[in-house]
Formats: sequence, C-alpha cells, structure tokens
Amino acid sequence: MKILHHPHRDDIHLSSVLYALSDPIRLGIISVLAQTGEQPCNYFCVPVAKSTLSHHIRTLREAGVVFVRIQGTQHFVTIRRADMDTRFPGLLDAVLGAASDAADFSADPSSPSDGVT
Amino acid sequence: MKILHHPHRDDIHLSSVLYALSDPIRLGIISVLAQTGEQPCNYFCVPVAKSTLSHHIRTLREAGVVFVRIQGTQHFVTIRRADMDTRFPGLLDAVLGAASDAADFSADPSSPSDGVT
Repeated sequence: MKILHHPHRDDIHLSSVLYALSDPIRLGIISVLAQTGEQPCNYFCVPVAKSTLSHHIRTLREAGVVFVRIQGTQHFVTIRRADMDTRFPGLLDAVLGAASDAADFSADPSSPSDGVT
Repeated sequence: MKILHHPHRDDIHLSSVLYALSDPIRLGIISVLAQTGEQPCNYFCVPVAKSTLSHHIRTLREAGVVFVRIQGTQHFVTIRRADMDTRFPGLLDAVLGAASDAADFSADPSSPSDGVT
C-alpha cells in the first residue's frame, strides 16, 4: 500500500505553512475542511484539473497542514488542527478568519470519486 | 523622484500577504520591524546580497505588508500595521508570534548605507 509522508509536528515550519496557505485554491480547501471536517478529495468543488488538485493537496500535506488517509481508492483529507494550534497558536484561526471573505469554494458531494492525493 | 507603488488597503490580498511572509528572510525583516519600528534598508543584517534584499523588500511592499519611504538616497521601511490589522485581524500577530522561534535576524545599525528598495 502506498505510504504518504507526513512531517512530524516538530518538523513543521512556519514558512512552509504560510507558503502552502498562500494559494487561493489551497485556502479554499482549508476553509471547507475547517467547516466540514475530514472529506474525500473529490468533495472539493474547485476550478482546476484533478492533477492540479492533487498537487495542491500534496503541498498542504507536505507542509504539515493536512493529514491524508487512504481508504480503498479514496484519499480522505483533514486539517492537522492540533499540530497547527500547538506549533503556531492562533495562526490558522487568523488565516481562516481572513479567508472568510474569499471566494466560495462550496463542496460538491455529488461529484464522482477519484481518489487523488 | 522615483515613486514606489503601494497597493490600496482594499487591494491587499490574503494570498499575496501569506506568500510575502512565507520566506524566512522576509519573516526576519518583518520581525525586526515589528520590534524596532521604521528602519532604513541597510539596518537588516541578513545573509543575502543587497539586490536580493531589495527583492525581498519589494515583495513585501507590493503585497502591502510594508511601506517604503524615500529620503535622499535612503529607503526607510515600516510595517503597514493599521492596514494589516484592519484587513486581516490577528494575522500579523499570529505570524510574528510563530516567527519568534525562528532564526535571529539581529539588526546591524553600523553597516553602511545602500538605499535599496
């Protein structure tokens, strides 16, 4: 089974987290996850190709912002909230608050499964 | 006289601010400015060439994070604290708090003037 790398909490760096959050698509993904909890990758209704969505989720995962869990052919994504809040208190809430005025990346649970990472 | 562009408060975007803050050098510059207030560009003791420092300060200026004031051959930099706090409440404090564990970019007031932007 494919093993996805997730950085240890102590190896999560502020600059990588800020970079991961500096893209509007990735901000939208995080905003949706903050509101809904864990979701499969195909839950996100974003105006990009599946391969691009995979890239964005990989960037968030490698920065330590999200955890990706494999179940069958699906990849489920969730925010590493405890790790974020421990490493950088208040940062995620401030970013999410600021992002609330951004574009509405509404979820679309009816879209077909793809299992991207 | 050279006119430097600064985005209007309403044109400051979260993604641009997060990107500008996602570099360790730029984070160091902002941390120093937060502690000391307005400083000339040559105040920052960073391990990069002057041209690279200019690039970093330009990135911060164009994102709306800092204001650059020209006086003679000097460029003075200050954080646009009111604009940041109005647009993204709590964000800068959260970033600065998280950055406090980062590398020490101590100021070096004795370094020669260069007037970079």
